[in-house]
Amino acid sequence: MKSEIIAVGSEMLTPFRQDTNSLYLTEKFNDLGVTVAFKTIVGDRHKDLVGAIRTALARTDIVVLMGGLGPTEDDLTREAVAEALSLSLHRDADQLANLHVRAAAWRIPMPENNLKQADVLEGAVILPNANGSAPGQWIDTTHSGYRKLLMLVPGPPSECCPLFESECVPRLRAVLPVRHIATRTLKAAMIPESQADKLLAPIYKPYTDVETTILAHTGDIQLSLLCAKSTPEAARQRVDELASHIEEALEDWLYSSEGESLEQIVLYYLGLRQATLAVAESCTGGMIAERITKVPGSSRSFLGGAIVYSNALKIAFANVPPDTLSSHGAVSPQVAEALAKGIRQRTGSTLGLGVTGIAGPTGGTETKPVGLVYIALSDAQKTEVVEKNFRGDRDRVRQWATQQALDLIRRRLR
Amino acid sequence: MKSEIIAVGSEMLTPFRQDTNSLYLTEKFNDLGVTVAFKTIVGDRHKDLVGAIRTALARTDIVVLMGGLGPTEDDLTREAVAEALSLSLHRDADQLANLHVRAAAWRIPMPENNLKQADVLEGAVILPNANGSAPGQWIDTTHSGYRKLLMLVPGPPSECCPLFESECVPRLRAVLPVRHIATRTLKAAMIPESQADKLLAPIYKPYTDVETTILAHTGDIQLSLLCAKSTPEAARQRVDELASHIEEALEDWLYSSEGESLEQIVLYYLGLRQATLAVAESCTGGMIAERITKVPGSSRSFLGGAIVYSNALKIAFANVPPDTLSSHGAVSPQVAEALAKGIRQRTGSTLGLGVTGIAGPTGGTETKPVGLVYIALSDAQKTEVVEKNFRGDRDRVRQWATQQALDLIRRRLR
Repeated sequence: MKSEIIAVGSEMLTPFRQDTNSLYLTEKFNDLGVTVAFKTIVGDRHKDLVGAIRTALARTDIVVLMGGLGPTEDDLTREAVAEALSLSLHRDADQLANLHVRAAAWRIPMPENNLKQADVLEGAVILPNANGSAPGQWIDTTHSGYRKLLMLVPGPPSECCPLFESECVPRLRAVLPVRHIATRTLKAAMIPESQADKLLAPIYKPYTDVETTILAHTGDIQLSLLCAKSTPEAARQRVDELASHIEEALEDWLYSSEGESLEQIVLYYLGLRQATLAVAESCTGGMIAERITKVPGSSRSFLGGAIVYSNALKIAFANVPPDTLSSHGAVSPQVAEALAKGIRQRTGSTLGLGVTGIAGPTGGTETKPVGLVYIALSDAQKTEVVEKNFRGDRDRVRQWATQQALDLIRRRLR
Repeated sequence: MKSEIIAVGSEMLTPFRQDTNSLYLTEKFNDLGVTVAFKTIVGDRHKDLVGAIRTALARTDIVVLMGGLGPTEDDLTREAVAEALSLSLHRDADQLANLHVRAAAWRIPMPENNLKQADVLEGAVILPNANGSAPGQWIDTTHSGYRKLLMLVPGPPSECCPLFESECVPRLRAVLPVRHIATRTLKAAMIPESQADKLLAPIYKPYTDVETTILAHTGDIQLSLLCAKSTPEAARQRVDELASHIEEALEDWLYSSEGESLEQIVLYYLGLRQATLAVAESCTGGMIAERITKVPGSSRSFLGGAIVYSNALKIAFANVPPDTLSSHGAVSPQVAEALAKGIRQRTGSTLGLGVTGIAGPTGGTETKPVGLVYIALSDAQKTEVVEKNFRGDRDRVRQWATQQALDLIRRRLR
């Protein structure tokens, strides 16, 4: 079963506003075993809207229209559906009464155009809206010889989501074949994207009954697996089987089998080893600490550290010998090592992390280009230094360095 | 002129990921006088994609396809455009060479499927991609008797936006009728949203020829003004006139009249006063330093500081007296003050900033609830402590505290 979500409203075609309801609706659809095949955003223009509805009916089985049900002249969804499906509209007496009761309760006058919110499409079921004046509508009809379900729901998230959940989901469940969904989210760090694809595509492609989505973002790859079957056990078995093959292939790039973030995993391992961590960040400027402290309870294993942006602070807070700075420069494996060792000594942490590099856009040289980053990790036994040349702008270099640093800690603790 | 933006990628049809590039592209289109009439999100299915392209060409003049240009089997945009427009694809020798050079520079092997990134549509102009391996393509063609412009751009925001700006915008400008646009972006910090609206709506509503958009986000309000006229002077005059009225109304909440970020303004003032800054962050865990160091050149005024997550580090790095901690608790005005003073002394900075609070979700008490944050700012003359009770989850509390801290510095230096 394929569905399309159409968000109606010119404000969502500006640079400032986005449809977000569709994320919620997609989750609900997926739980019912329905794929969202298209999302469309269309403005408050009658002709555009009629065309978008016809296109959606031609390419999917279930269409949700969000928005355009209010009282203003720009609210055209009911009229557009009437035209697209050649259905008549009638003003419903019960809805009219509801509108009058509502206006009286709010002590507001009832302008004439408000009344169009009582217009109901021929054959539609009215879906009560507990949080607003415009009700939704449910249409179960035949279009060009195929059965089509069409839902009109209000646009504001506070009305759309509860109404969809309480009125549309049960009706969909009654109509759709019973399906049980199992999901898994696997995550891997620092594996090159093209390599991941080459490695994984042959594994997941044969599992045509498991929907696999791969998301990649600065050194982080997320695989989402979803399978729908007639029993929960059958769905679970297929997802787990595929997951175990993928886990094997990803080897130690894999850091999570249940969707945890890399910083959550790092904190999990720190807790497990009863170890503590402190950081001395230069080019990442606090980004590593920020990611770690995003996790509730991180204070149990994370002591803190220093943002050693200036050379003076590298010396003062992380015991970097002034000689090392002057002879090798601030961006050098020696300084990274000294930062990791020094912050560990200064804080008494089990692990010390040091990062120094050139985030750009300026400051690069022939021998030390923008993107060069040294990351060092120190414990009681040893200090390891990694050299990387990251691509991209200042923000990307900092994100890559942060991801690499967290992955280095994970690999040490694993 | 009407355009449609098509975002390609099954991941954007999951509950987890959204297209955001289109907001940026919409801004650029609006600047050129082009309306975005539709946005479509379509998955990595050849048939769906071909259909979506045909629909877009039938209803708009300009179509942008974002994504699906990578090396994987799921990357089908080139092939779908070829089918939708009946164009042939050829493997371009220069692009092939580029791919090999890139792979060599990264010292990674070149899998066979990578090569499809060198496939170019018949009659297309290749748009170089400075930030990734897949180039964009520009097609100026005739479809069903009408002139159509079609752009293929990569999906990752770090590639899509720069490429669209440098390669598509100039080509569009050369083709489209001349319109002169003037814009201004005003920003204000920590003004309550409802107050801002009440204050500003009566000012900008009468300027019906200036498009005004207000965006609010954790203590930051951004007003974007846009006016299109037949001459640059006429457009500029209207925008400046409205901007000056708004500036007056916002008084000292206003921190930027040209769109700079709050951290950029803080760094601007620090430079102007030849002052330096150091931070001691507890609950914000590096977020303040991260925002400041995001700005290129921040090292000229920002020395760094300490992430004093543990009490031991509050003592070790920011000279907080152990007595103060034990008698008042880590979350107290006294500790905030000691952090600000201490980090200033330890680093020799002109200004010292200290932040301590309860970000949650746990750790709150009757007298010290989640959201309670103390922020202190110290210079040679005085130390000021602000107490705030922020609403929201852990991430929101940290964002509010960061914004408040930066605004405190701005107000001191102004």
